[in-house]
Amino acid sequence: MAAFSEATRVRQIGDGFEAELDPLWTVGGKPNGGYLLAILARAAVEAAGTHPDPLSASAVYLSPPDAGPVSIAVEVLRTGRSASQVRARLSQKDRTCVEALFTLGVLDAAGDPRWVDAAAPPVAAEQDLLPTPSKAPGTDLRIDMLDQFEQRIDWQAVGDPPGELRGWLRLPDGAGWDPVSLLFAADAFPPATFTLGGNGWTPTLELTVYVRAVPSPGPLRVRQRARLLTEHLVDQVCEIWDSQDRVVAQATQLAAYRMAAQ
Amino acid sequence: MAAFSEATRVRQIGDGFEAELDPLWTVGGKPNGGYLLAILARAAVEAAGTHPDPLSASAVYLSPPDAGPVSIAVEVLRTGRSASQVRARLSQKDRTCVEALFTLGVLDAAGDPRWVDAAAPPVAAEQDLLPTPSKAPGTDLRIDMLDQFEQRIDWQAVGDPPGELRGWLRLPDGAGWDPVSLLFAADAFPPATFTLGGNGWTPTLELTVYVRAVPSPGPLRVRQRARLLTEHLVDQVCEIWDSQDRVVAQATQLAAYRMAAQ
Repeated sequence: MAAFSEATRVRQIGDGFEAELDPLWTVGGKPNGGYLLAILARAAVEAAGTHPDPLSASAVYLSPPDAGPVSIAVEVLRTGRSASQVRARLSQKDRTCVEALFTLGVLDAAGDPRWVDAAAPPVAAEQDLLPTPSKAPGTDLRIDMLDQFEQRIDWQAVGDPPGELRGWLRLPDGAGWDPVSLLFAADAFPPATFTLGGNGWTPTLELTVYVRAVPSPGPLRVRQRARLLTEHLVDQVCEIWDSQDRVVAQATQLAAYRMAAQ
Repeated sequence: MAAFSEATRVRQIGDGFEAELDPLWTVGGKPNGGYLLAILARAAVEAAGTHPDPLSASAVYLSPPDAGPVSIAVEVLRTGRSASQVRARLSQKDRTCVEALFTLGVLDAAGDPRWVDAAAPPVAAEQDLLPTPSKAPGTDLRIDMLDQFEQRIDWQAVGDPPGELRGWLRLPDGAGWDPVSLLFAADAFPPATFTLGGNGWTPTLELTVYVRAVPSPGPLRVRQRARLLTEHLVDQVCEIWDSQDRVVAQATQLAAYRMAAQ
């Protein structure tokens, strides 16, 4: 996973960290929200120095940064035996862009859980689905990050049930997913509002991801579901299974949205 | 709602706030986590001075405070037209206990949503269910907060499906629920692990609540579901409908748990 880990690298400078937001991991020229959360997680893990994996990550999105240098301020809130908790804030120039709270711990490789309610949903075979292009036909929006990984959506399954998108995510060159890149995966699918008449504009207000196991090698199976659409806000659930059909992450997101012009 | 609003009152002192944690809103002598989140929300709303309702609330729980005085530090992260975002931290003496991030806005009274995937689940009629007592038979645990509101669990429905508890929440004296007290309601049910062999010990690491509408008068219908139980951690979903069967809040929680002794 050289490309993703390189693009989310942080450097400690005094009490804080610096990072360089990569112009390749962007949507419409702006760094993706899950990508920013992964960068904050790397700083949180390094600052705590106790636990390698994000168990929970909750972020509020304040102002979208541009590609380029950012600074990250970190405060370790609690250092415990089984978990530590950390706040991290990403700023660009004098503008605070994202603030997040993390619970860090040690995840097991995905094994058999004691109990789970979420069976892996059906998705057409990966090789039968086309990767989503970074330049969608008929729109001006460039999703440059789609040149950095493979997103395959099961378009034939859209509408069954309504408000849901299912598909696959794969990193290039056989690279494996890990607990930090799962934070990105939880925000790497199109908004499910897209299946309900929404246009592509869905700025995230809040994103919470629970990482539940270290994923096995191979692609991720993703289900993105809309829950409730009020006039201007939607909450979505994103569930992620590894190639062994084990739940590895569950996420929720509150976002603004707009309906497409008729 | 005099009792709850009184028990969550905050007083501005300089740049911060003070509050008095009420010994009545406790579980095993410790203030409930949703109760603490509601207190932080009141401080966040007052500090922002722009938007009255929490739209999202995400908290990490660091150290459980005792009943008694606490201080609350608040930082307004962003003031926007449709939403503002705020961080709030609750401390007791020199110990940081809870830190939370809020998105604030203006909620509509629950109306017909544009789209929703979550129909209100069946629950036995409220009058056919007994209020949960504050002193459960056969245990030493006192849940004092259960003398402050009515929690009625549909025990006959437990196991259908597994990992799920459904029931009602009602405030005394005909008091109505509001967006801030919904933050409490999202943590007012027993852990769903209880239905899967867990004991009552489920300290919360992270709690995220999305408040989606102002509830109509009357009781709340609640569904608490376990998702995935790994060896020591569980994530749960709590969904809340108002008396008109409209979704008013959706929450997730990551907690530690233990299995009951055999």
